[in-house]
Amino acid sequence: MVKHWSVPVTEALKADGVRIAELATSSTPGFTGDKKHAQDLLIHRGEALSALQEKLYANGRSGDRRSVLLVLEGMDTAGKGGIVRHVIGSVDPQGVDHAAFGVPTDEERRHHYLWRIRNALPRGGQLGVFDRSHYEDVLVVRVHELVPREEWEPRYDEINEFERELIREGITLVKVAMFVSLDEQKKRLRQRLERQDKYWKFNPSDIDERAYWPAYQEAYQAMLDRTSTAGAPWYVLPADHKWYARLAVTELLIDALEKLDLDWPPAHFDIAEQLRRLERA
Amino acid sequence: MVKHWSVPVTEALKADGVRIAELATSSTPGFTGDKKHAQDLLIHRGEALSALQEKLYANGRSGDRRSVLLVLEGMDTAGKGGIVRHVIGSVDPQGVDHAAFGVPTDEERRHHYLWRIRNALPRGGQLGVFDRSHYEDVLVVRVHELVPREEWEPRYDEINEFERELIREGITLVKVAMFVSLDEQKKRLRQRLERQDKYWKFNPSDIDERAYWPAYQEAYQAMLDRTSTAGAPWYVLPADHKWYARLAVTELLIDALEKLDLDWPPAHFDIAEQLRRLERA
Repeated sequence: MVKHWSVPVTEALKADGVRIAELATSSTPGFTGDKKHAQDLLIHRGEALSALQEKLYANGRSGDRRSVLLVLEGMDTAGKGGIVRHVIGSVDPQGVDHAAFGVPTDEERRHHYLWRIRNALPRGGQLGVFDRSHYEDVLVVRVHELVPREEWEPRYDEINEFERELIREGITLVKVAMFVSLDEQKKRLRQRLERQDKYWKFNPSDIDERAYWPAYQEAYQAMLDRTSTAGAPWYVLPADHKWYARLAVTELLIDALEKLDLDWPPAHFDIAEQLRRLERA
Repeated sequence: MVKHWSVPVTEALKADGVRIAELATSSTPGFTGDKKHAQDLLIHRGEALSALQEKLYANGRSGDRRSVLLVLEGMDTAGKGGIVRHVIGSVDPQGVDHAAFGVPTDEERRHHYLWRIRNALPRGGQLGVFDRSHYEDVLVVRVHELVPREEWEPRYDEINEFERELIREGITLVKVAMFVSLDEQKKRLRQRLERQDKYWKFNPSDIDERAYWPAYQEAYQAMLDRTSTAGAPWYVLPADHKWYARLAVTELLIDALEKLDLDWPPAHFDIAEQLRRLERA
């Protein structure tokens, strides 16, 4: 067991049976340490993550088609960007395929909703990161009825099928839904309005969205209930404490990479011969 | 002046009049400190770079079309990957557009050589990184005569014209050519053959390329002589000392970002009104 964890993070955060409406967003499931412990651990475990990611990258460069894809979902201010900055920021940028999915562009709208997702899938050996994802098409789209129910309703099954296909192609999905409380969100939005270096993160519509909180909770619940599968489970991440959220995602990624059981790629050449050639060159 | 620098890095590394064949690749132009100083400074200056990059990103999100593009060229083992890992690794991955240009794919071959380059240009607000670039088309292509002289010869002018266009579009180019000695390269290749965790970086053709060293020097010299322009100058980076190379590129990027004279984007909303709305929401 990793220091300061009472159960593996994959156990602590599993979605099975979780009721979003009752989630304690300031809890720190499985973690027995405090903020200081978490911050110290984050540095140490970030290095472990970076070492594993380098092996993934090395294998990708040697023809291995496998990759890992972190899917981040959560309301505004849930801390998705902070995860990218502070967790993904610990690994080599060469090995990261990052994509953020906002309101669809005109071109994206002309295609199936999975089109832009397929275009952004990580290449072999890469650590992919989706800041929002295909799940927007059963979250914001459902809440605001951007398409009629008969259109979004079949998407749950379609997404499950899509993800089975990704798994067959060698993509390990790490799906993380981040949750803050309505109060914590208010605090974070207020900060964006009080600090000149945060204005750019604020959009007046963020406040409008707060009126839809119960509808979003319902949509998130349906997402967890219907798309958390054995091959691609959801992890439910209480995210009021940023230090916990960052450490927990680091551990989830380490777990996913360890399960790939990676070794350094073998030499595809005669080492002694190449050393002799090199000395003469 | 930044601590431990006797002249600004942009002065110390300027390409004007540099003869590649006579370059002291183990020198540390402009830097008066030692390895330990450089490593300490790198952390500190990496944070400064990260803070500037965040402002660039914030402005990009607010509609500013400007971006910065680091172009890295250099022979195998020159340390381009290390720059990405250790310099670009200090900034938020959300703000990085990284592209590596290897041997062209079949599709790339069917297009003009600048096609793949145009497709990978950084979006507004992004810090772009090219690990190799359009300059391969006057380097490896020239050395190995992959196309006849009458085809590569006009490319110098064409590239200058292309880069003028990029500058007009708001891209600040930071072009860095990294040079190690033939001996240093041998040492680094040997390491790739002696360490199991480095085999994947080695290709037997890397040794073949050493026979073309003088031709590469000539091609690099022509590149510097003909494409170092006032708007997009080349910087010549002695790279035997990785600690120097990483610090120097950090300083070059800081310089480029500072020249954009970035401030935090202003609020495009009435702050007091939004604060009132938030309290009620």
